[in-house]
Amino acid sequence: MRAVDIITKKRDGGELTAAEIDFFVQGFTRGEIPDYQAAAWLMAVFFQGMSGRESIELTLSMARSGEMLDLSGIAPFVVDKHSSGGVGDKTTLVVAPLVASLGIPVGKISGRGLGFSGGTLDKLESIPGYRSGLTLDEFKRQLRQVGLVVAGQTASFTPADGKLYALRDVTGTVQSPPLIASSIMSKKIATGSNGIVLDVKVGQGAFMQTEAEAVALAELMVKIGRGVGRRVRAAISDMNQPLGRAVGNALELKEAIETLHGGGPEDFLEHCLVIGEQMVLLAGRAADETEARALLTASLKEERAWDKFRQWIAAQGGDVATVDNPQRLPQARWVEALPAPRSGTVASIDAMEVGLTAALLGGGRAKKGDALDYGVGIVLHVKVGDEVAEGEPLCTVHANSAERLAEARKRLLNAYTFSDEPVPPLPLIHQIIK
Amino acid sequence: MRAVDIITKKRDGGELTAAEIDFFVQGFTRGEIPDYQAAAWLMAVFFQGMSGRESIELTLSMARSGEMLDLSGIAPFVVDKHSSGGVGDKTTLVVAPLVASLGIPVGKISGRGLGFSGGTLDKLESIPGYRSGLTLDEFKRQLRQVGLVVAGQTASFTPADGKLYALRDVTGTVQSPPLIASSIMSKKIATGSNGIVLDVKVGQGAFMQTEAEAVALAELMVKIGRGVGRRVRAAISDMNQPLGRAVGNALELKEAIETLHGGGPEDFLEHCLVIGEQMVLLAGRAADETEARALLTASLKEERAWDKFRQWIAAQGGDVATVDNPQRLPQARWVEALPAPRSGTVASIDAMEVGLTAALLGGGRAKKGDALDYGVGIVLHVKVGDEVAEGEPLCTVHANSAERLAEARKRLLNAYTFSDEPVPPLPLIHQIIK
Repeated sequence: MRAVDIITKKRDGGELTAAEIDFFVQGFTRGEIPDYQAAAWLMAVFFQGMSGRESIELTLSMARSGEMLDLSGIAPFVVDKHSSGGVGDKTTLVVAPLVASLGIPVGKISGRGLGFSGGTLDKLESIPGYRSGLTLDEFKRQLRQVGLVVAGQTASFTPADGKLYALRDVTGTVQSPPLIASSIMSKKIATGSNGIVLDVKVGQGAFMQTEAEAVALAELMVKIGRGVGRRVRAAISDMNQPLGRAVGNALELKEAIETLHGGGPEDFLEHCLVIGEQMVLLAGRAADETEARALLTASLKEERAWDKFRQWIAAQGGDVATVDNPQRLPQARWVEALPAPRSGTVASIDAMEVGLTAALLGGGRAKKGDALDYGVGIVLHVKVGDEVAEGEPLCTVHANSAERLAEARKRLLNAYTFSDEPVPPLPLIHQIIK
Repeated sequence: MRAVDIITKKRDGGELTAAEIDFFVQGFTRGEIPDYQAAAWLMAVFFQGMSGRESIELTLSMARSGEMLDLSGIAPFVVDKHSSGGVGDKTTLVVAPLVASLGIPVGKISGRGLGFSGGTLDKLESIPGYRSGLTLDEFKRQLRQVGLVVAGQTASFTPADGKLYALRDVTGTVQSPPLIASSIMSKKIATGSNGIVLDVKVGQGAFMQTEAEAVALAELMVKIGRGVGRRVRAAISDMNQPLGRAVGNALELKEAIETLHGGGPEDFLEHCLVIGEQMVLLAGRAADETEARALLTASLKEERAWDKFRQWIAAQGGDVATVDNPQRLPQARWVEALPAPRSGTVASIDAMEVGLTAALLGGGRAKKGDALDYGVGIVLHVKVGDEVAEGEPLCTVHANSAERLAEARKRLLNAYTFSDEPVPPLPLIHQIIK
């Protein structure tokens, strides 16, 4: 087999065999197929796409490129969730302990934020001591003992994905459905969970801008997951404004803690319950959404979800006194409200701009490896459809630099539009793909 | 400017600016843009193509990537010819001295053979002493003194083309009209000739299999050449059987010498006269084809073309006694006729197979850098449309190994088909693009 023949076959619209895909993926991972051949192949895939069967084989081959966790000796059924990334999306912080508190093991490999999109690990690491870098043995041990673990990607997991993603990033081949889907699903499959709930965001503050794109990607990921014997469902959820109210690492953690205590923003709680229901259903612990929701709300009410959150944070070295007293979380020096420039109904909040502003304040990264300022961010006081009077606070900006505060205020003002007419609230979930 | 943005623009079907193309080509040539980005860009060009304007800019940028010859101080008008490659194509050996003998300077950078296709330099180097590797100063000096020079590509010429071609070869991006056209034309333009006649071969023994493809490529090259101020014409010539009778380096040189002496195969002579006419017309030395042909045939008859050939070979260090006595050229050990397996009319001769068989005998290269056996090859005794009786020789095989001889006989037998009906001879020239 020769790499150039595989490139040419894909270039001409042929369907690659499992052997051809595996030859390419493993050869590239081992450095036997050079970057330039992989780049040409990626661009050919960009133009010609991949069949469902090819996407499944690519995913499996990427998963097999590194260590694969076998969790069958630890629990009969482990669930995982994945979000395609958005602004204010702290769902894992609530839904993971919530589902785990029902005795359903949750084992998750999570990521870091980049650009407008936040990352679960960054939010967790605003807790002093929290360790994301677990070994595979530590991951398994905690899953067995606590029933919940959230760790970072290790180099031994899906090295093919890491190498391919870095190459796609600099060769204009990121936006390809089979490449996006196989990248996400290979990591999910390598971590060994039996059930996966995908939260595919759509809208102006998401990677997918249209519902059609989001549905196509979600359906492809569901097909891939089922093709390799996993139970998979996908929620298509709205990202035309930030989820909940807090955007910024410690601020979002604080909002998650409030939610686990029975408070928190209504939209965010509802989102967590929808994702949680699907995880419970995949695990076969409820007959339908209503029953699943009853289990979840009872756990919240009885603070069992909160107890599971504390156990989890403690098991990964996080300072429990901090989560018990969230005012001990990193705080910004300047905390300033942004007054509404006019009275009216909030017609839109540019989620992308809010995410980028949080990053500008120091809460996100322009490029991989940038250091973070955990205390900064934005807390929204009104959402789309809410009425506001001139001078009332639209949001509060948490900043550690006067210059950046001024810049953030200017950008945030432009992120809102207002209407004199009533505006219906935005939908939360567009559909569930089962 | 960033390489990834240029890749993405081309990927999405955008038209690149001259500055973007030059940024990419020069950056790649200097090693600042890595191979993997160039590979992704080449694949994007493969799929999206290039406008005429982009093709011209790409050609110019590649030409400018290295030294460019300025011949204006040497002669007012220098002509060149280029063949897209075929089997038995020894046209340059005859047409270059033929045109130069009329006082029209011919300066040409030529190539080597690869696969089924022979190379002019290889044929010339079957003459003891012939030096292809001239410096640019030597090239200019000989052009001034002899009015004719044929040398090999030097590293200082169009380095972008050398690097891009090597990358295209291993990334499935060879078969792209703008990349093929710019590769050829950048070299022609860097060598500084004012007029260029392109001989684009079409058929089963050529890189272009259909007349439509060949015409499209020829028209693009003509457009590029004119776009940078050169006079260009293209002949679309047939390559469904070998040109002339000899295939193999010394054998082809011998046939060229016979042709310069007024002999040689009729089809080959005619082909040389057609290409020569166009070169004479580009140089403005005749009013029409008829007048041009009269000049050329007179030069052949008076052996002025032969005299020019001798001067040229001598100027480049070749042993003139050898060309005066072609039996001194390298000879093969075994020379065996292949008898016709049946009586009938020759219906087809698989030119590609004849070319590959000559390479198998040692006359060609499977990969760059392979050593050549100059004496081996094949001489055809019949062409398509000729009648042959069973047992009469179809061709003669010249070999230096008994095993290869046996293999060659087997392959050549399969290269012929016969008919009981008359078969019209194949056309020589399909059209001239002016």
